[in-house]
Amino acid sequence: MTQPNLVTSFDRQMMQRCLTLARQALGKTAPNPLVGAVVVQAGEIVGEGFHPQAGQPHAEVFALRAAGDRAQGATMYVNLEPCSHYGRTPPCADALIAAGVSKVVVGMVDPNPKVAGSGIARLQAAGVEVIVGVEEADCQLLNEAFVHRILHQRPFGIFKYAMTLDGKIAATTGHSAWVTSPPARSLVHQLRSSCDAVIVGGNTVRRDDPLLTSHGLGHDPLRVVMSRTLNLPLEAQLWQTQEVATVVFTQPLVNPTMQHHLQKQGVEVIELSTLTPAAVMSDLYDRGLMSVLWECGGTLAAQAILENAVQKILAFVAPKIIGGVTAPSPIGDLGLTEMTNALTLDRVTWQSIGMDLLIEGYLKR
Amino acid sequence: MTQPNLVTSFDRQMMQRCLTLARQALGKTAPNPLVGAVVVQAGEIVGEGFHPQAGQPHAEVFALRAAGDRAQGATMYVNLEPCSHYGRTPPCADALIAAGVSKVVVGMVDPNPKVAGSGIARLQAAGVEVIVGVEEADCQLLNEAFVHRILHQRPFGIFKYAMTLDGKIAATTGHSAWVTSPPARSLVHQLRSSCDAVIVGGNTVRRDDPLLTSHGLGHDPLRVVMSRTLNLPLEAQLWQTQEVATVVFTQPLVNPTMQHHLQKQGVEVIELSTLTPAAVMSDLYDRGLMSVLWECGGTLAAQAILENAVQKILAFVAPKIIGGVTAPSPIGDLGLTEMTNALTLDRVTWQSIGMDLLIEGYLKR
Repeated sequence: MTQPNLVTSFDRQMMQRCLTLARQALGKTAPNPLVGAVVVQAGEIVGEGFHPQAGQPHAEVFALRAAGDRAQGATMYVNLEPCSHYGRTPPCADALIAAGVSKVVVGMVDPNPKVAGSGIARLQAAGVEVIVGVEEADCQLLNEAFVHRILHQRPFGIFKYAMTLDGKIAATTGHSAWVTSPPARSLVHQLRSSCDAVIVGGNTVRRDDPLLTSHGLGHDPLRVVMSRTLNLPLEAQLWQTQEVATVVFTQPLVNPTMQHHLQKQGVEVIELSTLTPAAVMSDLYDRGLMSVLWECGGTLAAQAILENAVQKILAFVAPKIIGGVTAPSPIGDLGLTEMTNALTLDRVTWQSIGMDLLIEGYLKR
Repeated sequence: MTQPNLVTSFDRQMMQRCLTLARQALGKTAPNPLVGAVVVQAGEIVGEGFHPQAGQPHAEVFALRAAGDRAQGATMYVNLEPCSHYGRTPPCADALIAAGVSKVVVGMVDPNPKVAGSGIARLQAAGVEVIVGVEEADCQLLNEAFVHRILHQRPFGIFKYAMTLDGKIAATTGHSAWVTSPPARSLVHQLRSSCDAVIVGGNTVRRDDPLLTSHGLGHDPLRVVMSRTLNLPLEAQLWQTQEVATVVFTQPLVNPTMQHHLQKQGVEVIELSTLTPAAVMSDLYDRGLMSVLWECGGTLAAQAILENAVQKILAFVAPKIIGGVTAPSPIGDLGLTEMTNALTLDRVTWQSIGMDLLIEGYLKR
């Protein structure tokens, strides 16, 4: 199915255009993937589209609409295999066939093993030429949360932290504003805009009173607090829910007065029989969320890692030294006693963000 | 004196050659600087030299010897201003004049404010053209320890550590072998070969039984242990002093039996009335040492930083996660309670070393 020899730099360029189009809906498509589509007739783009959000037409449909008659005999580029099933919209494979598209260039196959390849097969059965795997690494990266959700029935978890060069997220007093410089903090706001939810623990609410929004840089994630005790401040930025929603997860029958106080302000309160990262991720999965950003302290982060609720780590390292034997580190107890048993990261990359360094990697499982 | 407009790429190339020559004596010249010299006649190198160690002739002398008669009317490149005073060898400025060199290109002036510029003045007074400041940043970097020693009457302190991406130098149990991969560890051996001494505390000896040599990659530094109690193992790699010397610093009258045991094996034992990093650095200065590598744990590192015994930080960061609230971090208590008071690093650079990342920077004072 993959024919790498036939892939031209024009093909790669068009696939990158699909990804650029797809990114316009970053953070808004859950549980659907980010998809962009481009129709090319005689070397010229005659139609473009992207999937804006669940319930709306797929990217291919927008691109075909824009192309109109010029889709006849054209090539369609799309970063994800066109669907072949009836969902809230009819199958895109059928729409492509009906429009008379003669060739489809696909970035990656549908990650769902039950349907993977069926859209491609449908196109091929109708005599449409199909090329698969163009710019595949970038396509996989853009939809890594979608892929994880499909394969594991859980949202994709990202743990982000900012530490000093001596491994501390705060001084011994707990004071932490700020570890990193403005460009790194702005990147975190962007990161939030690409995620469906942000999670913190009660400690973070008590100590930092965070806002957890994208600060106007895009879509705002659902704000999630995990609190066993509901021993939380009566006033907090997170309880201001006019513009951005907040959910507080707690345990059954905990502090009904506080529950009522939060609900009055529009905060959703959910009682889970066991308040664990896994249970919260399960609830967020049921809400259709794809990507969840953990912005919590070390104790909750360790629990999330142990329960497989973190797939990717984003570590901002600031070129400063704070010291402190009891100053908190980013990750609490994982029960690892030998350095040889440390969790190693995969696909590690780094970049400078202003004065700071951002190190990214994936937890191997 | 500096005439940057007249500097050609050939000049820069010749100065880099001086630095390459100078580096051949890395770790061996204390208390003298690393100096290389090149004599160029009609665009061709006719003589080269470097300063091999204290008591030996200066780089310029070796280069002039190699050039012989061809030094007449030639250009001499040298990374440090030629000396103008009688030390263990006669002034190089005079030797250059006597050899009939017509132009001298200098990387940097002598850092000693009392003599800076006098070698250049002597050359100019004799009618020799002098250009100063070619590849100056690289020249300053190569001799940063020498410069620090001259300006502050203390050795230059480098604190090196290896930590996980979550800021830990060991697991909760103290187990730390190994945080980084072989290429990073090999670089540490190289680093030792460029330093005059390596310091650890008693804890490191008890826990790791380190060797602290260059593992055959070059010169071996003096191995230094700071131990208040002399509660040290009877057998340790550091007590094997046939090939590499070891000094143990302790306090007066501590554990005479252990002192005797160490001395019998060739270990030098020094009693300091106050056993502090500053006092040890003072002793090492008196021994003529220029660069000292701190390879100690967090408590001693914090004390060394507080006492201004650390100028440069080398942090190896391994892409792995060990976790642990009580797992040790690289730097102990500095008494800093607000993140805004963190010590910021200057001139920060990073590079990948195998799987690991090396972040370097200088403490601002």
